[in-house]
Amino acid sequence: MNTANNKNRILQARNPRTGEMDYSFEATGEEEIISIVADLRKGQPAWAAMSVQERAGILADWADAVSSSDELLQALVTDTGRYFIASAELGRLSTMVQDWLKIGETIFAEQIAKQSSAPTVTYKHQLVPFEVVGVIGPWNFPFLITLIDLVPALMAGSAVVVKPSEITPRFIAPLQKILEQIPALNAVCRFIEGDGQTGQDLIKHVDALCFTGSVKTGKIVYQSGAENFIPIYAELGGKDPVIITENADPKDTAKIVLRASVQATGQACQSIERVYIHSSIAEAFTSELVRLSEQVEINYPDIYEGHIGPLIFDKQADIIQSHLKDAEEKGAEILCGGLIEQHGGGLWILPTVLKNVDHSMLTMTDETFGPIIPIMTYTDVNEAIQLANDTQYGLSAAVLAGDRVEAERIAMHLDAGAISIQDCGITAYVFDGEKNWFKYSGTGASRMGQMGMVRFFRKKVLYTQSGETQGIDAMG
Amino acid sequence: MNTANNKNRILQARNPRTGEMDYSFEATGEEEIISIVADLRKGQPAWAAMSVQERAGILADWADAVSSSDELLQALVTDTGRYFIASAELGRLSTMVQDWLKIGETIFAEQIAKQSSAPTVTYKHQLVPFEVVGVIGPWNFPFLITLIDLVPALMAGSAVVVKPSEITPRFIAPLQKILEQIPALNAVCRFIEGDGQTGQDLIKHVDALCFTGSVKTGKIVYQSGAENFIPIYAELGGKDPVIITENADPKDTAKIVLRASVQATGQACQSIERVYIHSSIAEAFTSELVRLSEQVEINYPDIYEGHIGPLIFDKQADIIQSHLKDAEEKGAEILCGGLIEQHGGGLWILPTVLKNVDHSMLTMTDETFGPIIPIMTYTDVNEAIQLANDTQYGLSAAVLAGDRVEAERIAMHLDAGAISIQDCGITAYVFDGEKNWFKYSGTGASRMGQMGMVRFFRKKVLYTQSGETQGIDAMG
Repeated sequence: MNTANNKNRILQARNPRTGEMDYSFEATGEEEIISIVADLRKGQPAWAAMSVQERAGILADWADAVSSSDELLQALVTDTGRYFIASAELGRLSTMVQDWLKIGETIFAEQIAKQSSAPTVTYKHQLVPFEVVGVIGPWNFPFLITLIDLVPALMAGSAVVVKPSEITPRFIAPLQKILEQIPALNAVCRFIEGDGQTGQDLIKHVDALCFTGSVKTGKIVYQSGAENFIPIYAELGGKDPVIITENADPKDTAKIVLRASVQATGQACQSIERVYIHSSIAEAFTSELVRLSEQVEINYPDIYEGHIGPLIFDKQADIIQSHLKDAEEKGAEILCGGLIEQHGGGLWILPTVLKNVDHSMLTMTDETFGPIIPIMTYTDVNEAIQLANDTQYGLSAAVLAGDRVEAERIAMHLDAGAISIQDCGITAYVFDGEKNWFKYSGTGASRMGQMGMVRFFRKKVLYTQSGETQGIDAMG
Repeated sequence: MNTANNKNRILQARNPRTGEMDYSFEATGEEEIISIVADLRKGQPAWAAMSVQERAGILADWADAVSSSDELLQALVTDTGRYFIASAELGRLSTMVQDWLKIGETIFAEQIAKQSSAPTVTYKHQLVPFEVVGVIGPWNFPFLITLIDLVPALMAGSAVVVKPSEITPRFIAPLQKILEQIPALNAVCRFIEGDGQTGQDLIKHVDALCFTGSVKTGKIVYQSGAENFIPIYAELGGKDPVIITENADPKDTAKIVLRASVQATGQACQSIERVYIHSSIAEAFTSELVRLSEQVEINYPDIYEGHIGPLIFDKQADIIQSHLKDAEEKGAEILCGGLIEQHGGGLWILPTVLKNVDHSMLTMTDETFGPIIPIMTYTDVNEAIQLANDTQYGLSAAVLAGDRVEAERIAMHLDAGAISIQDCGITAYVFDGEKNWFKYSGTGASRMGQMGMVRFFRKKVLYTQSGETQGIDAMG
């Protein structure tokens, strides 16, 4: 494991419900990464030689073991301070395998010979998976989000190394134990532990890399990928706006916006972080939103009760507080919430509704990643579109209008990869359809839909000549 | 045009038939690029709002003007020192427009609503083209290769800035004059002049970049793209191998290999640069290859006669000579050709067949880009596959065997994006089918097939909720 010139760093993790640094672990060193990747390269050809159905069968066994491991669940609960979401994260593996199998069967079935534009030439594709793919995950859904890349990569026939966030490392050891029970999978899938440095080391030794995280880190990852001449698939931050038109129902929309803003304590990429509402219904909407917000409860002291969990990453509390302070100093009014609460050492914040906000404030420009709902009114929908697009992000957005047609007309002008119409945050649970990112919210091929698996292949063309071949002609 | 702090550099170009620096031009400065890109951004929405058929119609008008301009043809002939290829380069625009129209019609027709995995949610895609795409072209097919990116980008609805190589700049001015006759196209398409610095400046101001050139420059371009957080579609060098099995016909294969190695004087990415032949037919093949090689003539003094043109880039002569010198010093034997010939100031080289070569020699490892045909024998086909894959390149390759089935079995093991079976270099004239690159031969989405146009879009998902939306539930 360790060698003299490969001192693995010891890292510590904070418990989001107690604030204690109660877990320590070794960051996987670069030499160890090199050795793991070499092992995976050995295992990968046999994995790729299986049919996609065989690979799915092995992954389904893994899904069963994952969803029935109490040790794994408890570790993920401790990592994130939430029970129901942790349980849902583990439960999703099984449906993901089924969904990707359907897509995989379509992709692999397409390998038939086709007539080319030249009458004597036919062609067909060979799908050649990257040997070893790296996946670097975030702390907000530590297992689920890595699965979005891991499952299609394995299904494509690649081997995969996953490095989850150092903020939420506890689930890795029990997961690794389960993997070891399934030798065919263990030969091509490894979870390693570590921080940003570990991620940088990993990039140097894999053939493609998937990253989910902040814009700042994502830019660095993209540059490291270019230095190592490998493709980077990165989904980064968002500052999702919702536009609510005068024809929308203020009460319904308040219910939708609240859920989309505070679910997972706002610690989700597709959380609604900006509300643009027509002035004619702003008051009705706002008062309903505040009324509903005041019914939201934290999951403390009982983790099985309440609606929202603690802030997983304690530094996020400082960011949220700085955004609120900045907004207040610039004239915003906090209608409810607004305080970081400490309970038993953990940090929580209740839904926080703000009015009188504008784009001079951090809460309208920077990702907050908390249950903060700043409301800005408009009178002309074109103005709302301009405001929604006035951002460095382009992840997702939403429109709530009188009907689908009105909403879609607005959605067409929004610069974001996924737009929820008559709802918010649909992308959190509907993975169908390819989508790319606008501006700084991501780069590389869609991680959803067919492309979500195709991105792990090189498409190789085999051209067959069945006619006379030409010699050297007079083309001086 | 020029301002005090935007001194445009004056560059000079060499005439490949006379060796004279007989053309000088101004490199487009960064301020000018900024202004051009700003103009194109203004023009792009109207272009994108047209139907793909309308855009194709305008491009077809352009194709007519291009193929009938004698001034343009003469300029490209001077740039490259070849008449027939120059004429073919200009003539290809028209068929490219037709081919991409067919693909474009398919892509745009796919924008219909689909049922998602959630029963109450449907989705459809909106295809949002990048506003301004940059294209940086090479000197070997100065117009044709830029068209491979330019035509699908324009067809997708993007505006495009093209920077051809500074080695072959003469065709740009007459092309620009033609563009100005077609205002709808001129508003979204501009050819600029300049060198590597101009290319670096361009990358900073466009939303996506296509590059064709060397591996060395391609790596730099990819890194610049990552710094500017834009996608890079790069097709780089190759060192294409052909494997010839004992069951192949030695005479037929000699004819094919000769054409694929010496066409365009070997100045093509998909030129065959390494021959691996079964020892049992090596002699018959080699003697036929030498016999045919000795019939090849240069296009001097009459540009309308002969088979091959001059070396366009004079420095290429030094590279070729250093590869030959290195091979000879290490024991290779030159069977024909082998000399850089100077005629009237231009540089030519005849087909050069080498035997007794191995992978210690530059001619087997580095891109030569000349009509050099090094032949290596093998006895076990697995050894041939290993040798073919023993390279940093993975552009294309070829297999000549007894029949298609035998060839395909070998092709499946070759690490390259396109494999010609029972022929060589099919990718030079058959663009059907998506293909990616292996190793250092390229990065980003396929520039061929449907993906060749899709890469210029962000695929945006519009999700419509038609059922009840959820409020905040007990997901602590």
